[in-house]
Amino acid sequence: MRILGIDPGVATVGFGLVESDRTGQRMLQYGAITTPKELSLAERLVQIGNDLETLLAQFQPDAIAVEELFFSNNITTGIAVAHGRGIILFTAQRSGIPLYEYTPMQVKMAVTGYGKAEKHQVMDMTRRLLKLKSVPKPDDAADALAIALCHARSATSLLSRVQGGGVKETI
Amino acid sequence: MRILGIDPGVATVGFGLVESDRTGQRMLQYGAITTPKELSLAERLVQIGNDLETLLAQFQPDAIAVEELFFSNNITTGIAVAHGRGIILFTAQRSGIPLYEYTPMQVKMAVTGYGKAEKHQVMDMTRRLLKLKSVPKPDDAADALAIALCHARSATSLLSRVQGGGVKETI
Repeated sequence: MRILGIDPGVATVGFGLVESDRTGQRMLQYGAITTPKELSLAERLVQIGNDLETLLAQFQPDAIAVEELFFSNNITTGIAVAHGRGIILFTAQRSGIPLYEYTPMQVKMAVTGYGKAEKHQVMDMTRRLLKLKSVPKPDDAADALAIALCHARSATSLLSRVQGGGVKETI
Repeated sequence: MRILGIDPGVATVGFGLVESDRTGQRMLQYGAITTPKELSLAERLVQIGNDLETLLAQFQPDAIAVEELFFSNNITTGIAVAHGRGIILFTAQRSGIPLYEYTPMQVKMAVTGYGKAEKHQVMDMTRRLLKLKSVPKPDDAADALAIALCHARSATSLLSRVQGGGVKETI
């Protein structure tokens, strides 16, 4: 199955496409949607929606995995990211492709086996699991690949593979 | 000109349609989009987008005015509302109808003449300005009418009327 991981944002939305089967996971594609800061927030949101629709049509993923938001420090940034994440959930949901959400802790746990792993540990395990020579850039794309790996390696994904899809997880 | 005011949210999105000309403002319609809490966030966002598209087609407003978000207390609610507000900005921007954003303080100032007015004062002035017998319910709809009034009574609106529209304010 093809899994599209998405790291939400407004200025930068990371994406990573992973192929997963019994033998493991392989990276198919990664990158980022970026929006110019000269645009209004509304214009940036429209660009994110349009670009994500294009990616979904191009990649034809079997599942979309999006990270949950958690904020401790900058609420202003958090509010902006939540606007962007809204568009990602909206576009994914409208596409009809099964949509899954994971917390940062679930991503860390699935990729490194430790829910409080440091960012560099998650990045390095993502690189190793996907047999890449270096950690993908930008960080948002590497994060998105980790989110896709999280879905590939999670019980939800295994379950939906057994049942032929359609299991919807809402966390 | 017809102005559609929108009070953002996820469970409840208030809307209020106001007709404004040199003689003043009149209420044409108000109400709320509500989404069942049994749905996932993504499903609720799709419903909000679809319902707002229907309202825009039905009302054919000349301008859309949306309130800015400010949070002091509940960040979890704030993050959810920001997801919903993202869909509102996205849908409004894609419609091509001129979109304006106002802070709560701007709304209070435009409606009551005092930027730190209490909520009940804003509600009462909204009722008076629109010559209504009582304050519209739910509160989200009354808030949306206040936002529409804010645009009607703001310099931006007067300017765009003189220039024939197209003045875009991003606050």
